[in-house]
Amino acid sequence: MLKLYEYPSSGNCYKIRLLLTQLEIPFERIPVDILKRESRTAKFLSKNPNGRVPLLELEPGKYLPESNAVLYYFSQETPFFPTDKFEQAQVMQWMFFEQYSHEPYIATSRYWISILRKPEEYKQALEQKQPLGYAALGVMEQQLKEHPFFVGNNYTIADICLFAYTHVADEGGFDLTGFPAILDWINRVKQQPNYIQITA
Amino acid sequence: MLKLYEYPSSGNCYKIRLLLTQLEIPFERIPVDILKRESRTAKFLSKNPNGRVPLLELEPGKYLPESNAVLYYFSQETPFFPTDKFEQAQVMQWMFFEQYSHEPYIATSRYWISILRKPEEYKQALEQKQPLGYAALGVMEQQLKEHPFFVGNNYTIADICLFAYTHVADEGGFDLTGFPAILDWINRVKQQPNYIQITA
Repeated sequence: MLKLYEYPSSGNCYKIRLLLTQLEIPFERIPVDILKRESRTAKFLSKNPNGRVPLLELEPGKYLPESNAVLYYFSQETPFFPTDKFEQAQVMQWMFFEQYSHEPYIATSRYWISILRKPEEYKQALEQKQPLGYAALGVMEQQLKEHPFFVGNNYTIADICLFAYTHVADEGGFDLTGFPAILDWINRVKQQPNYIQITA
Repeated sequence: MLKLYEYPSSGNCYKIRLLLTQLEIPFERIPVDILKRESRTAKFLSKNPNGRVPLLELEPGKYLPESNAVLYYFSQETPFFPTDKFEQAQVMQWMFFEQYSHEPYIATSRYWISILRKPEEYKQALEQKQPLGYAALGVMEQQLKEHPFFVGNNYTIADICLFAYTHVADEGGFDLTGFPAILDWINRVKQQPNYIQITA
């Protein structure tokens, strides 16, 4: 069976649980406590030299890191990945947007505030992250004002990828009330078949 | 003809020039001076709401941002993208690694030192970036010790993607002499057919 090495409250790990559940692919969850630096042990680094979760073990000794690469792998030839070549590239566009322009601000703020629970210690860094996270939300809002999902008219891995940290952005100090199209989209994602919560 | 909106010394823009040249696909270069905030004008934001270069115009009004999404689009069904499903996912893995664990440290340091030419102003931030950039180089060195290229035995868009900022890492204050496998790989990339320099 597939093994998912994960830190359960991580949005990057949740992305994979959500897609595999929606695809009805069984997997075993193996917790890695990043707060105890369990992703930096010699044993874990032999599995993923970059020392991060999630990490998927496809078969004994065959590993795939990077949440969005795992989404890509399992979505191929399923309804979660478009068939049109340009739409495929647009899925990539939004997934790279997520890792470069969204996750480093919204996920990192959530980590400091709600996982480490040290908002005072990271006060200055959080202030720097705020405008950049809101800028990413603004780009998303503009797209979702005119489209039900990020690419084409269908729910794809681009949505799964961006949903993971956006729907818990409040845990990073971001207020979504000014983003009505994002809020509507969050509801549409939650209505997808086999949806599971991040806390599931 | 394809139009590439770019800031010429940007490694992210160079990635696209390198692949399109190697594929012998003609394109027009349209300079966007990011130092003059030309990527943040209303006109540019109407093309790419995220306000970044590179941006590719495939046909009038049809735009694709995100350097690695553009690499993905043009590499499909060419030798620059593997046919094996797992190797395809490994290409994704390295491209997401590049945008999350490499570019924010090595490219950003290069930008402050060699493009803005303000190393003193960014001294403290540069010191924070150094260990994280070297960590990314360490992960690359480990992979390249045992493999000629990042995925399989062939030169792919994973190599183009990581080459862009790695081969000019010295311009960001990174010393590659401790990374012999990376230096050998840089030479292998430079020997690929239709190779062009970042300054070309």
